[in-house]
Amino acid sequence: MSSYKSDIEIARESTMQPIGEIGEKLGIPYEALMPFGHTKAKVSQGFIESVKDNKQGKLILVTAISPTPAGEGKTTTTVGLGDGLNRIGKKATICIREPSLGPCFGMKGGAAGGGHAQVVPMEDINLHFTGDFHAIGAAHNLLSALIDNHIHWENKSGLDPRRITWRRVVDMNDRALRNINVGLGGPFNGTPRESGFDITVASEIMAIFCLATDLDDLSRRIGNIVVGYTRDMTPVRAREINAEGAMTVLLKDAFMPNLVQTLENNPAFIHGGPFANIAHGCNSVIATTTALKIADYVVTEAGFGADLGAEKFFDIKCRKAGLEPAAVVLVATARALKMHGGVAKTDLNTENVEAITSGCKNLGRHIDNLSKYGVPVTVAINRFVTDSDAELQAIQAFCEARGVQAFNCEHWEKGGAGTEALAHHIAEVADSGASKFELLYNDEMSLWDKAEHIAKTLYGADEIIADNKVRKQFAQFEQDGYGHFPVCMAKTQYSFSTDPSLMGAPSGHAVPIREVRLSAGAEFIVVVCGDIMTMPGLPRVPSADHIHLNEQGQIDGLF
Amino acid sequence: MSSYKSDIEIARESTMQPIGEIGEKLGIPYEALMPFGHTKAKVSQGFIESVKDNKQGKLILVTAISPTPAGEGKTTTTVGLGDGLNRIGKKATICIREPSLGPCFGMKGGAAGGGHAQVVPMEDINLHFTGDFHAIGAAHNLLSALIDNHIHWENKSGLDPRRITWRRVVDMNDRALRNINVGLGGPFNGTPRESGFDITVASEIMAIFCLATDLDDLSRRIGNIVVGYTRDMTPVRAREINAEGAMTVLLKDAFMPNLVQTLENNPAFIHGGPFANIAHGCNSVIATTTALKIADYVVTEAGFGADLGAEKFFDIKCRKAGLEPAAVVLVATARALKMHGGVAKTDLNTENVEAITSGCKNLGRHIDNLSKYGVPVTVAINRFVTDSDAELQAIQAFCEARGVQAFNCEHWEKGGAGTEALAHHIAEVADSGASKFELLYNDEMSLWDKAEHIAKTLYGADEIIADNKVRKQFAQFEQDGYGHFPVCMAKTQYSFSTDPSLMGAPSGHAVPIREVRLSAGAEFIVVVCGDIMTMPGLPRVPSADHIHLNEQGQIDGLF
Repeated sequence: MSSYKSDIEIARESTMQPIGEIGEKLGIPYEALMPFGHTKAKVSQGFIESVKDNKQGKLILVTAISPTPAGEGKTTTTVGLGDGLNRIGKKATICIREPSLGPCFGMKGGAAGGGHAQVVPMEDINLHFTGDFHAIGAAHNLLSALIDNHIHWENKSGLDPRRITWRRVVDMNDRALRNINVGLGGPFNGTPRESGFDITVASEIMAIFCLATDLDDLSRRIGNIVVGYTRDMTPVRAREINAEGAMTVLLKDAFMPNLVQTLENNPAFIHGGPFANIAHGCNSVIATTTALKIADYVVTEAGFGADLGAEKFFDIKCRKAGLEPAAVVLVATARALKMHGGVAKTDLNTENVEAITSGCKNLGRHIDNLSKYGVPVTVAINRFVTDSDAELQAIQAFCEARGVQAFNCEHWEKGGAGTEALAHHIAEVADSGASKFELLYNDEMSLWDKAEHIAKTLYGADEIIADNKVRKQFAQFEQDGYGHFPVCMAKTQYSFSTDPSLMGAPSGHAVPIREVRLSAGAEFIVVVCGDIMTMPGLPRVPSADHIHLNEQGQIDGLF
Repeated sequence: MSSYKSDIEIARESTMQPIGEIGEKLGIPYEALMPFGHTKAKVSQGFIESVKDNKQGKLILVTAISPTPAGEGKTTTTVGLGDGLNRIGKKATICIREPSLGPCFGMKGGAAGGGHAQVVPMEDINLHFTGDFHAIGAAHNLLSALIDNHIHWENKSGLDPRRITWRRVVDMNDRALRNINVGLGGPFNGTPRESGFDITVASEIMAIFCLATDLDDLSRRIGNIVVGYTRDMTPVRAREINAEGAMTVLLKDAFMPNLVQTLENNPAFIHGGPFANIAHGCNSVIATTTALKIADYVVTEAGFGADLGAEKFFDIKCRKAGLEPAAVVLVATARALKMHGGVAKTDLNTENVEAITSGCKNLGRHIDNLSKYGVPVTVAINRFVTDSDAELQAIQAFCEARGVQAFNCEHWEKGGAGTEALAHHIAEVADSGASKFELLYNDEMSLWDKAEHIAKTLYGADEIIADNKVRKQFAQFEQDGYGHFPVCMAKTQYSFSTDPSLMGAPSGHAVPIREVRLSAGAEFIVVVCGDIMTMPGLPRVPSADHIHLNEQGQIDGLF
């Protein structure tokens, strides 16, 4: 593949249009844009208000089979389908998540699509972009400072320094901050206690930011955050230390959705980026709802594979925001299916139809799962240059037997021209009214039953298990009035089970629940089923070692 | 004074011009601006390059008498003089520092001028602005993460975890982070060691950012940062852990100067904001040098009183950047002079000519000090509505006796119309070629002698004193090759002595040096003469308690 250009080479050769022209394509006047340079902008609250009564466009979710190290190309397919829809004459846009800054300095690679299906300016998007994550970090850390200040002076709420659950955040992979002691150095420097930092995308503020319907809702949810407990286990909320007003002020501008463009100069919203394990992994509700008012088709994506990403998109984001998706695109690649069929990463360039057929059980399980939501499913095969015709035919045959249409997509190589057939089909499905969206579970089910229902119905598990402490925590949250919240499953993305090495479609397993956490502001209960890392570390040789400005003033080493 | 409008009321009533029109006034084409919204922009590196051979404008420094709780209005006077120069038909701009975010949530109040002499949009400027401080924080903390990662893996440099001098930063007043233990939780979570956080403006990156002449110089200086020492006290630099390239990438956009406007729609640069104690307290060199190439007069300010701010402006910024100031404006108020004359803050509204005359010894010392630099001095009396004519006449008489012209300025109430006389005079002085700028000391003097010379010549001290450990440190820095650096005095701003309660013009005192610190990237030696706080705390009732968005979506409680 050395004859192919790199993502960054392709991006640098593209010609971007001024952001005002991109906005015009969706009817956004330039005055309603808050530009950040000439190719990025935020969309004003006033404009968002003004389109509230517009007719709603069709929402299309792009999700994927269980991720493998071979890569699936979910964002790339989202971008490619958006370009394809525009290419066939539809008024379409995409809504994706903002990448996190910190990981850019660890492993090489960005998160803005790839090949000829990218959003640009990719360097900006992957670095500070419009400052949203910095604003979220500042709001989060203001609350942290206010909590310690509250304790330092009078601690009127009686917050127990041993029971503060609110940590601090930084948008950096910094393992040394995972567990720290703060407040050392005597009485003028705070109260000594254990704490730590998470990466900014793991902040509950990020989840809240992405679920809030407007600034009032944002402020209300922030006020509801439980920051810790008193000695007698009474929860203390952000509201009780008067934090939500100032925090909302810090988030006011960030809350406006960001508009950029694809390589084919089609409009793209990139806004918010919560973790897909301890949070729901979708771009902001405000971006999605705004896009739906000004485009006829909105293509969006969800984190990880469909068992986690699509489930949370439906059961958390759509439930809370009242969204009704019209179609789902399930992304698969021949390479990833081969891995699900047992092939090692080093052997992926060898044709292996048998492994594909075996690996399709992963695809099949996701198709079955998605069909439970009543939204029509289409498979997009994201073609790699090494895929053989026989391999692709095997996937097609599998899908046909399931009664699902599959499309070979070549957006990585050809951009929107590579997804035309998919785009025609998706537009037709979305317009057909075939989608009869329903949630997987009701608010009224107990928290335990919600988790169990997801595990049995989607993961193929026989049961969920938990020790008494965890079961008591479930009961406590219900007693505290949070029983109606959806659950946010934090499980490995690599398997339907909790063992990341079990690829394909395992079943009959038990899902052990290690811990449950309250996100009272985001309004969900996090059900932790395995190791969850909320502060990554840097590798032995971090990519920061090689990142620099070259003589043309361009960034080298980032991608 | 209740019949007067508040700063925020005045600012909200002003009509801002689009930033493109502001740029045009200085000949900056819109394409050379990187807009942030419609009233803020950065000026591109390409444009900065393109004006490098332009003729140089005149540089005017605004400094002040020793600060008192009565307030002097240095930024307000800088803005007012800039507006005054424009009003009399001069092509003038101002260069001031960016305010820090964190303190906004502690004490009420911003840092963007006041009354009718303000820069706008003031809320934006006081909050995230164009993200510069977030970028500086990210670059600083990337280095921190790389240091702990370096130790975690192989520690090839042999860095001693007990001797790491590089801390972390956050733009928040958070006392609980002053002293912390990091790396707790076992071998996968780093190496336990003592550390802490400073506020972002105290970062050496901030000082470097404000002294670097271009991106190459920025990268070179970052590489030179000493992050700690090995067991045998060999310094380890940022360069040795390959940090400077990625850090420069994070600062690339931030390094472009920010352009905004005054209430009178005159262009204003606001860029960088280092602490005035452990750093030099001036806006960025790149903003100042760029402004000098496109305006005929550039009015800038320095932190604290003239003993600290002007000294560092001359002996650090001008020395390093090759700048030659053409005039100095020394700001005084009747109220502050009364305090220097012994009046309590509660009695300031009572006329007291005697106290003024007595307090003028502070003004006199600053005039004497400034005259040592060969730059013509003019006094600006920043009028308050409570000032009596007799009081103002007393100040005038004092200045006249010293052979220095003093102007009553009413910019707070009248904007540029209130500084016309001052503006005419300053333009004349600047154009006259009367300034024969010279530095206070040579690079070749020993570090100890530099500190002693400043203390004796400017502070009126008899001697500087230090224990053996500090004297050895001076010697060590010289042995390590830093003897040619200027010294950066960190002393209380409230007195010429190191006792903040000694107002007026104390003399004959000793200046005890508690500590010396190396800023190898910023290229100065910090001489600490007293308590220096690099991480503020929040007060008992922080202003965050009351900050919120009002029903019009405006920020209440911030000012």
